[in-house]
Order: sequence, then C-alpha cells, then structure tokens
Amino acid sequence: MSVTAAQGFTASGVAAGIKENGNPDLALVVNTGPRLAAAAVFTSNRVKAAPVLWSEQVVKGGQVSAVVLNSGGANACTGPLGFQDAHATAEKVADALGHSAGEVVVASTGLIGVRLPMDAVLSGVDKAAGALSAHGGEKAAIAIKTTDTVHKTAVATSPAGWTVGGMAKGAGMLAPGLATMLVVLTTDADVDAPGLDTALRAATRTTFDRIDSDGCMSTNDMVLLMASGASGVTPDAAEFAEAVRTVCADLARQLIGDAEGASKDIRIEVVGAATEDDAVEVGRSIARNNLFKCAVHGEDPNWGRVLSAIGTTSAAFEPDQLNVAINDVWVCKNGSVGEDRELVDMRYREVRVTADLAAGGESAVIWTNDLTADYVHENSAYSS
Amino acid sequence: MSVTAAQGFTASGVAAGIKENGNPDLALVVNTGPRLAAAAVFTSNRVKAAPVLWSEQVVKGGQVSAVVLNSGGANACTGPLGFQDAHATAEKVADALGHSAGEVVVASTGLIGVRLPMDAVLSGVDKAAGALSAHGGEKAAIAIKTTDTVHKTAVATSPAGWTVGGMAKGAGMLAPGLATMLVVLTTDADVDAPGLDTALRAATRTTFDRIDSDGCMSTNDMVLLMASGASGVTPDAAEFAEAVRTVCADLARQLIGDAEGASKDIRIEVVGAATEDDAVEVGRSIARNNLFKCAVHGEDPNWGRVLSAIGTTSAAFEPDQLNVAINDVWVCKNGSVGEDRELVDMRYREVRVTADLAAGGESAVIWTNDLTADYVHENSAYSS
Repeated sequence: MSVTAAQGFTASGVAAGIKENGNPDLALVVNTGPRLAAAAVFTSNRVKAAPVLWSEQVVKGGQVSAVVLNSGGANACTGPLGFQDAHATAEKVADALGHSAGEVVVASTGLIGVRLPMDAVLSGVDKAAGALSAHGGEKAAIAIKTTDTVHKTAVATSPAGWTVGGMAKGAGMLAPGLATMLVVLTTDADVDAPGLDTALRAATRTTFDRIDSDGCMSTNDMVLLMASGASGVTPDAAEFAEAVRTVCADLARQLIGDAEGASKDIRIEVVGAATEDDAVEVGRSIARNNLFKCAVHGEDPNWGRVLSAIGTTSAAFEPDQLNVAINDVWVCKNGSVGEDRELVDMRYREVRVTADLAAGGESAVIWTNDLTADYVHENSAYSS
Repeated sequence: MSVTAAQGFTASGVAAGIKENGNPDLALVVNTGPRLAAAAVFTSNRVKAAPVLWSEQVVKGGQVSAVVLNSGGANACTGPLGFQDAHATAEKVADALGHSAGEVVVASTGLIGVRLPMDAVLSGVDKAAGALSAHGGEKAAIAIKTTDTVHKTAVATSPAGWTVGGMAKGAGMLAPGLATMLVVLTTDADVDAPGLDTALRAATRTTFDRIDSDGCMSTNDMVLLMASGASGVTPDAAEFAEAVRTVCADLARQLIGDAEGASKDIRIEVVGAATEDDAVEVGRSIARNNLFKCAVHGEDPNWGRVLSAIGTTSAAFEPDQLNVAINDVWVCKNGSVGEDRELVDMRYREVRVTADLAAGGESAVIWTNDLTADYVHENSAYSS
C-alpha cells in the first residue's frame, strides 16, 4: 500500500518518456488533507542537485501539498538552468492540482550532469495528475526505481487508528548523510510540522544514516514525511516516533538487501564502546573497508581486516583488548587469535560481525554489503 | 642495484620455507658502516603488528645495523607470543652477525592473525646471513614480494659521490599513513640519524603518504632509511632530501603501477585550493570513491562522481565554481556541464583528473587505481 496506506493521500506512477527504455519514471504523491504538514531531511553532500535546493526551501515552510519524483535523470550539476527545470516542474504540478508551487517538493534520481528532457517531464506531470488514485501507492513506488530490482514499501499501523506508510528507491551510493535514495513517508496521524521533524530526524539517525552500502554519498537524497491528519487522531508522540522509525528501518533494510551487485548483507554491531559516536565511527570504518568487504564476498572470516579497519579510527580502545565475532564465533579475542575460524559458517546472505571495543557500554549497528565483481560491472559498464 | 647500490651495505634474499609455495620469503640487509645511522616511519594504524612494535623501539636509538624482512606472514594480531617471535628473530640475526639485537629492525608482511613458522624463520636467517653480498640487492627485493607481480627498486646518485638506493614491496592495501608496504632505503652519504629523519619524513609526506590504492591502511607498514657513511661525503642537506624524495617517488609510482587487479593508474591533481590540507582532503575523497573508481575502469569520464566526492569534504569551495578535467578535457565548468565528454580519451593506463576548487593557490597530487573485478577476485578468492 506504500504511500497510500494512510488516509488523505493519492498517488500515481507513469511512464513519461524520461527513461529511454519506456519504463515508469515519474511519480506523484498528493496530500488531500485536511492537514498539509511536512518535514524532510536532505543529503549532507555540499554539491546538491537542483531539486534538493528547490525542495529545501519548500519544506522550510512546513506545508507540502504534493511531491513529484522522477527517475531517469538526477538534475544535479546542471547549473542555473537545472534549477529553472526543477522550478518549472513544481509550477506544472501546481497548475495541474490547483495548488501553489511553493508547496510542491521535487525529487530526481539518475545520471548526474545531464539536463532533464523537460517536454517529457511536463507532459508526464499531466499524465500523472490524471492517474492519481487512493490506490496508486504501488505504481508510485515502481516509477521511482533506477537500478533497483524490486520496489520497496513499508507500513505501520497503530491501534489508535492512524497509519504510517512509505516507499523508497535506492540500490547503490547508499551512505551516511543519506545517499542515492529517495524516500516518501505519509501518515494520516494529526501531527504538525515540528512534530514530524522531531520524529523524522530521530528515525533517520538510527536507520538510513546507518546504512552504508558503498561509502559514496549522493547529491540527491531526500526523505520526506507528510501528514494529512485524515485519521483525526493526534498520536502519542513516542508511539508515533516509534512507528516512523519502524517504517524507516524496514525500508533501510530493503535498500541494503537490494544493493547493486551485492551477494551478502552485513550487519556490523559495535559493542563495548565508550560512546555511541565511537561505535558509529568504528562501524562505518569496517563497513567501508574494501578488503573486508571482498573477504565477506569470498566467505572468508578474515578478522584481521576488521582489526585493521578498527585501528584507523580515533575511538577509545586498546588493541590488545579487542574482540571480534563473525556469525557468533569469536574468532578474535584480546586482539589476537580466538576461536577456530573454521567454525564460521558464512554460506547465508546475512553476515553478522560483532566488534567489542571493551571500552564502555555503548553500541551501534551499521549495515553494509559485500564488494563484488557484479558491483564493479554495474558501475563501470555504463554511465549511471 | 636496489639496497646495495650504495656502498657499505650487503644484502640477500632466500627461500626460508615460510611461504608454502617455496618462493623466496626472507631478506636481510646489513649496514657494514662505518656509520650505522637510521630513521624510519611506521604505519599510523593503531593496531600495529609485532615487528612494528619491536622496530619502533629499535629505531628510537637512531642506530640500526641490519633489517630482516619476511613475506608469507604479517605477525600481526598475534599477541604477546607474536612479539616474542619478532624479538627472537632479531636475536637470531644479532647472533648470526655478531651485533646487538637492539640494532636489528624486523619487518613482516602477509596474512594477519597467524603465527610465523619460527623454525623456518630462524633457519632462514642463518641461510640469509650466509648469502650476504654487496650485489644482493635484487635478491632481497624479490624475497619481500607478496602479491607483487614485479619487484621494485630505485636509485639516485649525486655528482658529489654518494648514492641513495631502495627497494619496496606492496600491491594492495596502500593508503595514507602508509599501507601494506615495506620499503628499505640505503645511502652511503654521511648523515646522522636526525638528518635522515628530517629527509625521510619530508619525502614520505608527499610520496608514499599520497598514494591510496584502496583506502585501506595496513598494520605492518614501514619505510626504513639507513646510512653507512661509506662514501665519506657529507651531502648538502637540500640535495640529499631531494634524492631521498626522488627515490621514494619512483618507488611509490611503481607500487601504484602494480596495485592488485588494477587496470588504470589515476593521477588526481587538486588545484586552486585554499590550503594544501584542503587539496589533500579532496584528492583522497576522490581517490576513495568506489563509484568513481569503477567509472574509470569502464573508461567513462563520469565527472558527476568526482563532484559528488568533492561535496563530501570540508574543503573551501563553492559548488557552482568547481571545474573538473579528465585527461585535460574540462568536462565540468562552474559546477555544471563543460566540454563534450566524448572528447575524453581514456584508453591508456594512466588517467589524469584535475579538480579545480577555485578557492586559492594551493595544490596536491594523489595517486590511486581503478576498482576492478580482478581486485575483488584477488581479495575474496583466498585469505590474504
């Protein structure tokens, strides 16, 4: 049910002709109210795509009536003309729906440094507006796919009568500070923009911000949360925050599971850290170590590469107190050889690494993927 | 001529039986004086191999009579027993040569987390001591190879009558702060330990510290410079520093040229930076971007991935003033589309990327490689 699981939203996904292969490439999600509250987080990359620059301004107002998303082109590094294209797209949506362009978020994904085919985009907006439906969530989720092999949706429903639903796209370039992913969340809970912002930032900090497929950070990422208030229920703040977090975690896990060329999903849990920041730093360092990622691909419990990655961080630890488990076998104890590495079974897709810094009580989980020849192929054989 | 190009040094390389395949795996380089001055730089990884911990103490004394190096095992993450092994190796060399163990540097390279076969190491030391020769530099260079396809040597000679020579091994895990490389430099110039230290640190800062093949930092790296004074010539300090830098730059370029699985050597020059630190930070960020490295492998002048990498740094720049050239074609101007990317010819092994931050007059050069399926294969198919 995706973004239309919650009441007060319509959506559509169409083939606008932006992608040369004729696949769906333009999605529209409309908040039909009564409330039009919204919050968003954007890429922390300093090189931001035109739609990000546009949408940051829109979201500052706290009121969003619609979001239009296209695949097939990122509209990034396209200069002032690219910004005009993003603006024109918002104006076109506003015209079609009778709203103000200042309430229309624009999101794009695809190749950097290429102008969008605006004839296709603008006619696609008309087509999408005509196809809006309270059951259009799946089609919208399909239209934002790029190299994704499956579309990603998630829903959480409260016994109190409200729902949070969402869709995501992204299969590579996942990294902290967000990375080539576009996520739209909707809810019919009655929450104002500041309340949405609080829940969304808390949720992304421990979900999307802790998946790091290939260490690369995109120019276009966005997670948007819109509230229609259509359930008429003002939720308990903690319960609402948890529902948003649950949907984000579900979608984040789906992104990792569909990462470009990956054959393993790697869950890195850092425990025994002096601070949560230390745990995150160590987790990211392991997640970004190409040699470790290759070893996991080869089903080789090469804990030396884990220690080597930990050693590059500034986290509190003593080298001779580090412990590492791979799939629950403590192959490294006290910085040296531990249990027999032959005991580690790495045949399954999910691989669990536990790094114990023996320096405190804090922890964090970072998800990544293995590094494969398929990843190299997908990212070298053609421009993307 | 390698480490025996300079007068006052003997060397050897033998097959000690540490490597299972019977290839040469133990090298010895001996300073026959009259001076025994030395300086070294070591990995900045906090998880340091036993031979690094041992050798750091030796070099602090400023006097080194010999260095023993083995491939076939890193003796890293091997705990107190591993340290005892490094110590025992130094004692064995001292016995064989009639020196003090406190003047013997030990270096190892190979798999982390495995004890060395000490019987083979100790009998190998005897064998190597018996094979020492003033022409043994090439054999020593061959014995320290791991996944290197060729051995690496370089020499610079001064008209004033002194020489700097060296050997290096390393083909993967190259990164700033040094990375799985072992380098031994020798000179017959008459320079004391502080003078060697100054020249060596200046040289490594702009050579070995600016090659970053795969972003991974090793537990074992070492660059050792020994002076015999056998030429009887006290060199001009600036000329000597330049000779050391030249030999280091030559060896660093050879390391990049032989990096695991690489098909392209990528020279990233960052210009127009406000500070040299900014230039280095930006260069490293580009060098570590897997998507960019895949694009170069595919001979795709994908400058969007360069901008995306620059955007993750804290360097001074404005996104709409960035310029990027690939092989001298300015494919990105003012943060947007520049010259026709079809003009970029990427068929040759060396690829030049120029990133102009338009923020000042400082610059830096970082070398890296492309990311290939062969790299994945070499680092996943077996433990290394």
